[in-house]
This record gives sequence, structure tokens and C-alpha cells, in this order.
Amino acid sequence: MDKSISENGETAADGSIRGYDSLHQLLSANLKPELYQEVSRLLLGSNCGRSLEQIVLPDSAKALSSKHDFDLQAVSFSADKEQMRKPRVVRVGLIQNSIALPTTAPFSDQKRGIFEKLKPMIDAAGAAGVNILCLQEAWTMPFAFCTREKKWCEFAEPVNGESTKFLQELAKKYNMVIVSPILERDMDHGEVIWNTAVIIGNNGNIIGKHRKNHIPRVGDFNESTYYMEGDTGHPVFETVFGKIAVNICYGRHHPLNWLAFGLNGAEIVFNPSATVGELSEPMWPVEARNAAIANSYFVGSINRVGTEVFPNAFTSGDGKPQHNDFGHFYGSSYFSAPDASCTPSLSRCRDGLMISDMDLNLCRQYKDKWGFRMTARYEVYADLLGEYIKPDFKPQVVSDPMLHKNSS
Amino acid sequence: MDKSISENGETAADGSIRGYDSLHQLLSANLKPELYQEVSRLLLGSNCGRSLEQIVLPDSAKALSSKHDFDLQAVSFSADKEQMRKPRVVRVGLIQNSIALPTTAPFSDQKRGIFEKLKPMIDAAGAAGVNILCLQEAWTMPFAFCTREKKWCEFAEPVNGESTKFLQELAKKYNMVIVSPILERDMDHGEVIWNTAVIIGNNGNIIGKHRKNHIPRVGDFNESTYYMEGDTGHPVFETVFGKIAVNICYGRHHPLNWLAFGLNGAEIVFNPSATVGELSEPMWPVEARNAAIANSYFVGSINRVGTEVFPNAFTSGDGKPQHNDFGHFYGSSYFSAPDASCTPSLSRCRDGLMISDMDLNLCRQYKDKWGFRMTARYEVYADLLGEYIKPDFKPQVVSDPMLHKNSS
Repeated sequence: MDKSISENGETAADGSIRGYDSLHQLLSANLKPELYQEVSRLLLGSNCGRSLEQIVLPDSAKALSSKHDFDLQAVSFSADKEQMRKPRVVRVGLIQNSIALPTTAPFSDQKRGIFEKLKPMIDAAGAAGVNILCLQEAWTMPFAFCTREKKWCEFAEPVNGESTKFLQELAKKYNMVIVSPILERDMDHGEVIWNTAVIIGNNGNIIGKHRKNHIPRVGDFNESTYYMEGDTGHPVFETVFGKIAVNICYGRHHPLNWLAFGLNGAEIVFNPSATVGELSEPMWPVEARNAAIANSYFVGSINRVGTEVFPNAFTSGDGKPQHNDFGHFYGSSYFSAPDASCTPSLSRCRDGLMISDMDLNLCRQYKDKWGFRMTARYEVYADLLGEYIKPDFKPQVVSDPMLHKNSS
Repeated sequence: MDKSISENGETAADGSIRGYDSLHQLLSANLKPELYQEVSRLLLGSNCGRSLEQIVLPDSAKALSSKHDFDLQAVSFSADKEQMRKPRVVRVGLIQNSIALPTTAPFSDQKRGIFEKLKPMIDAAGAAGVNILCLQEAWTMPFAFCTREKKWCEFAEPVNGESTKFLQELAKKYNMVIVSPILERDMDHGEVIWNTAVIIGNNGNIIGKHRKNHIPRVGDFNESTYYMEGDTGHPVFETVFGKIAVNICYGRHHPLNWLAFGLNGAEIVFNPSATVGELSEPMWPVEARNAAIANSYFVGSINRVGTEVFPNAFTSGDGKPQHNDFGHFYGSSYFSAPDASCTPSLSRCRDGLMISDMDLNLCRQYKDKWGFRMTARYEVYADLLGEYIKPDFKPQVVSDPMLHKNSS
């Protein structure tokens, strides 16, 4: 893709803007610098007046990005120096990617193709010294749940399966924690299917797993055909680099889900996703940032890239004619911080690796500054939810007495 | 203010951009139309592909806006037609304003000055046929809580006090529900002080009140010196125009607070606020929109305007030298909708009236579409919060066993 076109936005025949790489590139290419700076202050938060700084990456990482044609961005958040604690700066990475082969290829080839595609991206993360890396939701396969065809279940693996083994080697090699969201087959419970993130430690060991808590039933997201709501609670994984958790995809629409990871002590929550333009793109810059603010932790948001075309046409209601694709997965992976700042987003169209340095001390600094947890009155909400879930719950409604005057 | 400067953004001596009216004006004045349209799609959500439409207002409303120099904007959200329900379109207004007189003027003059300033703005809302109108937090007074001086408590009024009587007349005249956030003095409970919204019905009757649930302790927000956390729960007020609730100011940082109004059935939640640039401006476009999305209701966000200077200097920590003002209240009032769209914002500097038409049917349409309430698993969170509030709560943490190997 011509870079000048992609950055400036190309006007298509119908007058719409296409081919640009990201909202932020569109703005920075089309606004004069001082205007872009002010827009950034409002849109990106700019780390409370401190600019996000570019991270200088080793040439080897940049070479991999050029050779394998993936977007590579690296910016760092800052935090205050403390007297009683040393900074706890960790380097965190997010990978977004399209599938490697058509969905008509043999399944094992499709899977191997994705492994081969990801290898140089993970190598780049390793070369860049990334400490914690998260891949996208169901990264080993096309996001075939739109079809409702059960044959795609063949892509499911046990937690210690092929993809985990592939990543364990790399985790060990690069001393890197890797979060690997896969379609899981639970061999110990009747071979049922889950949407699961496997947490691989920096020594190549499996630390644990988390299963997607909230399952969508909207548009072509026919995931409830394949797996049920997770049974693993809201675990926080204590790694050598910090406390992390995983809010898988649709769980980002649930503030309670974000909250629960926060109450359990998460400092970074990953949100590996697969979501398409028309349905969710305006929500994408809002929900993760809100979660980072409200819960005083960092969020890493990942969305896959590209349009995946399936052999058999399908429908999901919504008045759309039968179709063979899920729409455009718009990428745009990015990080949010507890101080309301965020990074620019990766490309809407290309594979990409987003890297950020973050001092985890910022989490507690913002807990202390804003005091959200201290002022949260959790006991009020524990009571309310306890009442709400009862079948005879009555909402607290105060009616205007004038309303029912005519009927009395 | 020169309009061309305010819309295009003026470069100040220090290179920063000043004097512009709002983010959206800055963008629309500096991007070519098709680029602005795409940026709007991403930033404003554009009502799921449907453009927000300008509302044609009567000349009398426009004349009041010119004569009294306040920003006046009016756009409408759209919703699908249903077969079993008629549209329930209501016209809703938000008023933001600066104070009228210096804070050194006699208190009664200050208060009367604000009444006189608001009168033509409420008249404009009336002329425009607004059904429900919300004023800003503690609208009868300067936001003096930064000072910690108790003399400002003189501005407190009982729920049926002077400001309520003033608005009751107007509510009746214009057949308008008015939400009036004031500093309340509770005459029946030892004359204590609350931060309270009074709900005045369209017949001029008092429907009820709600007291601010969450009180900030951050920066110059020394409100905890003046009043305590509210004791009115999360009431939803059933008016002839729809079910409304009020999340006062700092409560917008608490997703549980937004949730509770939703569980009680709110269709519009107002967030009357007083907040300043440096501290919260990057959060402002995020939190209300997230609440509208997550809870499938409309949100009306209001922030006061201008810089208020107090006679005695004060400090609030944060390393700032003693100062006489709270910083710049940046206005920017706007509406958010359950479909992730939002209106542009009112001015960052001028008084303003924002009007929107909204079909309240959109709330249930989005409940049905996305199913957030149905997939929310409230019982899981009722349990978690019930545990969390116990002193011996232990977070759900899975530690990497390799972590503690050296110490064992």
C-alpha cells in the first residue's frame, strides 16, 4: 500500500475515505502539528500533560517488520518517581494479524500458516525485549463462529496442545510471558469447547488459564453455538513482570467484568478480541479506556485484521442477505493507561505489533490520586445486586404523582 | 470572540492552541469534509451509520442565543421504527454556564445574577419545545468547595427553597421537567448539607430528589469537607416524558453507579458536573459514552464554564503554590446514546444550551440487539462483591510457581 495514501486517507468513488492506516495517522497527516498536539491532548489524554515518548527499537526488530510487512509501533507511558518503591517498568506487546491461508485450505495448513506468520512477529517482540506479549482471540484459526458450522471445532486444542507447545519454546527463548487465546477442548470434562486464554510463564511453564466470561449473541457473533460462559472466575496471574488478567472480547462491554479483574489486583488487563467495523468500531476507543480509568490499571486491546471469507454462505438475521464473510476486522490495537492516556492505534488493515513501556507503579499512584476504590461504596452495590438477582426484585422508581391522576 | 479564530484554533505565543470552541469545531474547520465525516464516524459513532440530523429551531430560540451570547446546538438521534410501539421521541436540553458576578459580590447578588443569566437560556429551551431540561451541578453558586471555607454553605437551600420555586414557575410555563442540582440544606435532619438534584415535574410539582452518591477527594475537589455520600440510593424518576436519573459529577467515574441507575430502569441519565481541564478533560469524552453503551440508555453530560476566582488563596497539595482559582471549567456538554453515538460538544468557553431529540425506544432496541443485561451474569458479581466487602477477602490470584522457587 502506498504510504502517503494510507496516511492521508484516499477518497473513494463514493466519497468515503478509505485506505488510511489509523485514526491517529489520518489526523496527524492532515492537521498542522500544533493542532494535532491539542487534538491528541483531548483524544489520547497525553499522559497528563506528559507526551508519550517513542521507544527506540533495535534494528533487528525493525528489519523483521519491514521484511514481513507488519506495522510496528512502540511508545512509552511515564509515571512519577516514588521514594519507597523503585519503578517497575515492563515492556508489553500486542500482536494483531490476519489469517494466512484461505479458509478453504486444509485445516492443518491454515494453522501452520498462522504459526509461520506469527513466528517473525514474536521474534521481533523478543528482539525488542518485550516482557509480556498477548496474541489475539482464537489466534490459531479463522473466526469461523459466524458460520455456525461445527467442523471448525476441529481447531480446538487442550491447554497443553500444539499451539501452547509452539509458544512455550518462544516464551523460554525470549524470557517472555505469553498470553495465548485459543479455542480450548477440555479433555477432562467430556471434550467440551471453551474460549480460553492460556498464560505461559517466562520459563515456558503454563501458569494457568482463563475462560471467556461473557458470550455474545449479536450480528454474526454466533459464538453461543460453540461454547458457554466461562467457569474460571476472574483470575489474576502473578508473573515475574506483574499481575495480569485477560478480559476476552465481548467481556469488554461488561463493566462488572473489568471491575472484577481490578478487585483481584490486576495491573494489566488484556482484551484479545475479534470484532468488525460496522458493529463496534465507535465503541473501540471508549470501553477499554474507560476500564483503565475506572480500575486504575493498564489495558492492552487487540483486534484481528482483515476480511475472512468462508466457503458456505450464512445468515444471522439483521436483514442482511446471506453472505460469506464476517465483515472487516479493523485491527486498531492499542494500550490505555490509568491516567486516561492511550497510545495511538495500530493499523486498521495490516498485521501489527504494538509495544509499550509502562511503569506499573502508575496503577497505585492513580488509586491514591483519584481514590476510586476508596469512594466506591461496594457494600451498596453488593446489596443492590443481591436484590436484583431475585425474581421479585422491584426497581427503585419514583413516579410523578401527576402521571396517574387521570387514571385515578 | 472572533468566530473564525474560535473555530480554527489560534496559535498562542507558547505554541499551544487556544480559543477554539470545541474539539469538533476544531476538526471540522481544519479537515476536508470527507475526512471529517470519517473521523466523525470513528469519534462520534454517527448513530450506526445514520448521520445525526440538525434540528431546526424556532427563530425566538435563536434570537435569545444571539442576544445573550450563548452557544446553541440541536441535533437529533434516530432509532428504528417498531411495529408494536409508537416512537417515544423526547426533546432534551442541557445548560452549561459561567457564574454571573465575581465571587466577592454579596451572596444574594451572586445568586440573583445567576438566576437572571439562566432565565433567557431556559426561555430558549422553552421556546424550542424542550421536554426535559437539566442544569449544571450546584448551579446557584460558584463551585467554592475548593476553598474549604464554610461560609459558602450559606448558598445551601432546602429542596423546596428559592431556586426550586424559581424553576417551578418555568417548568409549569413550558410544560417541562427540570432537573435542578443544588447545594441542599436538610431542614428535617439537623440542617446538614447535601449535594442534591431536585426533580421538578412538568406541572411544577416536586417529584423527588437524589443526593450525590460518590464524593471526590482529588486535587482541589475538597467537597468531602462540605457533604457526605448520598443516602437516596439510585432512584429513577418516572416522568410523563420518560424515566430519568441523575448521576452527579464524580459519580461518573464509578461504573457501578451508572449500572445501578440502569438496573432501576433509567432511559436518560444526566451527569451534571463541575470539572476542570488539567484533571479530567481526556476522560470527559470517554466515561459518559461508555455508560450509555454499557447500560443501553442516553446520557446527558454537563460541565460548567469559565474560571472562578475566590477572594482567599488556598492550597490542596499536589505541589501547586497557593492559588485563588479552581482552574478552567471546560464546558463541553454533550449527549451520548446507547448505540455508541454522541453529539458534538458545546463550547469549551461559552455558556450554552444543547438540545437533542431522542427516541427512547432506542434503549430497548439496544438491549435486544447487544443483550448486555441478558449476558451480564449478575449473580457472579453479587457473589464477588458480597465476598469483597468482607475484611478477610482474598483476591483470586494464580501465582507462577516459578516465582517462589528461589525462596523455597
